[in-house]
Amino acid sequence: MAGQLTPLRWLDAPDGPAIVLLDQTRLPAEETYLTCADVPQLVDAIRRLVVRGAPLLGIAGAYGVGLAAMRGDDVEAVATEIAAARPTAANLGWGVRRALVAWRTAASETGHVPSETECARAALAEAAAIAEQDAAASAAMARHGLSLIPPGARILTHCNTGQLVSAGEGTAFAVILAAHRAGRLDWLWVDETRPLLQGARLTAWEAGRAGIPHSLLADGAAATLMASGKVDLVLTGADRIAADGSVANKVGTYGLAVLARHHDVPFIVVAPTSTVDLSTPDGAAITVEHRPAAEVASLAGQPVAPAGTQAYNPAFDVTPAELVTALVTEEGLIHPVTEGSLRVRGPAPACDKGPRSAAYVEL
Amino acid sequence: MAGQLTPLRWLDAPDGPAIVLLDQTRLPAEETYLTCADVPQLVDAIRRLVVRGAPLLGIAGAYGVGLAAMRGDDVEAVATEIAAARPTAANLGWGVRRALVAWRTAASETGHVPSETECARAALAEAAAIAEQDAAASAAMARHGLSLIPPGARILTHCNTGQLVSAGEGTAFAVILAAHRAGRLDWLWVDETRPLLQGARLTAWEAGRAGIPHSLLADGAAATLMASGKVDLVLTGADRIAADGSVANKVGTYGLAVLARHHDVPFIVVAPTSTVDLSTPDGAAITVEHRPAAEVASLAGQPVAPAGTQAYNPAFDVTPAELVTALVTEEGLIHPVTEGSLRVRGPAPACDKGPRSAAYVEL
Repeated sequence: MAGQLTPLRWLDAPDGPAIVLLDQTRLPAEETYLTCADVPQLVDAIRRLVVRGAPLLGIAGAYGVGLAAMRGDDVEAVATEIAAARPTAANLGWGVRRALVAWRTAASETGHVPSETECARAALAEAAAIAEQDAAASAAMARHGLSLIPPGARILTHCNTGQLVSAGEGTAFAVILAAHRAGRLDWLWVDETRPLLQGARLTAWEAGRAGIPHSLLADGAAATLMASGKVDLVLTGADRIAADGSVANKVGTYGLAVLARHHDVPFIVVAPTSTVDLSTPDGAAITVEHRPAAEVASLAGQPVAPAGTQAYNPAFDVTPAELVTALVTEEGLIHPVTEGSLRVRGPAPACDKGPRSAAYVEL
Repeated sequence: MAGQLTPLRWLDAPDGPAIVLLDQTRLPAEETYLTCADVPQLVDAIRRLVVRGAPLLGIAGAYGVGLAAMRGDDVEAVATEIAAARPTAANLGWGVRRALVAWRTAASETGHVPSETECARAALAEAAAIAEQDAAASAAMARHGLSLIPPGARILTHCNTGQLVSAGEGTAFAVILAAHRAGRLDWLWVDETRPLLQGARLTAWEAGRAGIPHSLLADGAAATLMASGKVDLVLTGADRIAADGSVANKVGTYGLAVLARHHDVPFIVVAPTSTVDLSTPDGAAITVEHRPAAEVASLAGQPVAPAGTQAYNPAFDVTPAELVTALVTEEGLIHPVTEGSLRVRGPAPACDKGPRSAAYVEL
């Protein structure tokens, strides 16, 4: 199996600090890195999806605040700018806020006048802590999620939720990896995930690196695949989960949830609690990012539609809680997903108490 | 508005007959034509989707028999070969059989010994008759289908069903054109239709030529579009309709039908009666063509997934009759679609009796 990917790292170089990003727009053709030496470069990279995926955006946002502080930028203004780079993923704003609070706390510390560098180091320490917690959360989600995977499982997934979106092994893909290692995964079905093909480009690549048997499919082929009885469960990540349990995730997720319900297939969302945003009351209150028509009308710079064709191109959609069979977080399983269960988030589900080798939870 | 397209024409050239095809794999970038001077060239063109779409495949198959006869090929053997070039579209085998029967009938005519050319001319005359009937059927489907379109309609369509698949204006797209001309079409939503992007490449092109206001969308975005209340009905074509009303059509159609039902949106299939195959008892008996992985793993020769990625790539899926709100044929509306209603195909629905300006039929 291939080693751990490093989609983001902090670089404390002599000529100035920087954030180094694995350029996810170039994968799988090229493994190239982009060095962001200032916040405008980072914001541009976030907008262009050089760096992407809910948990990783949280880490990137926090490091962005640290970078601004190290450079002596207006940290408050820059934090607002980074948080607004993409509106849907809850983790981006959450990571920015955590680093900003650490910076503010350091800046207001009593007893001595802190230097700019001390404050910046506090923000960077918080970013590092977020990354560490994300890796731990990923491992915990994998453990909890594994309890839902039956032997011989054939799992359908959408978009990309592995090492490329995380300081650990990701969200839904971490569960898939755990199932593979436990010998419970028979086959992984990978939605290509148009328009930006994160499934084809990134998830198929990660599955290949991990030695997971898999097939790619056009998003429109998922329905007939389910009808053929070859999908035992659907696993996806999430970008924002509202207080009522509505799940914003990559466009196409909601359709899969409807299809899963129609075919009586469990639909499981895997996301850290940092993705749950109790201040967003419901699905209608989630801001869905709409992206340029060119993403649909062209592919890798090559037009696939007549010049000037308009496109409807929401980057995300919203799945109502009633279509979500269970939500896997680092704290345990939430099932069913309701406002009450999200607010309480506990007690830990029964499957945490028994030995890990116990039978999977029947949903 | 742009003129009539000619996706297929018979060429009686001095140096030998040929079938000239508008190369649909090159659209919209290039409007180029491919001349098929023998049956292997035609079969290759059918397999590569240079020529495609259920009604047009019927015409192409019939002309292929004529071409074989003109060339002095083994007509019976060649007919079998053409009919098997693609397994799902009912019209291909149907067109081949019609031309073959005409050829056989001419060959066995009593009273004189017919020349090879006379028999070939009989096959070609039958092919021309099929084309003429298809144009008339298209016009009739447009009339019948228009009765289902409410004023201000926002229609979602999948794949390509216009002039490029027909000697007339097509199937579902003929209804869309009729709605546009009648001032009833507010917006056309065009599914891009991966993997071969017939929606992006061909339907968006035809919509643009006809001046129809439209937007392209990734197939996975249809669910959230329906949830937003911006789709009043879904219109698609069909490649084969079994005796129980199951509809084989371009992959992705079945998922749209499930989504349409979930969102209480009428799902209308438009197809000539030549697409109805009463000898195929049900959906399970329909042979679904599976196509090469490269169609999903690459785009226009450019890889979009790691080298060697496997793909699940059915070209079609099957929608059960209970999800089809109505079937529009040249003979009228079939609603609900059942084995009984398909076998009887009549009497003509009430909406045929009133003036065309009468209110649309409420489904």
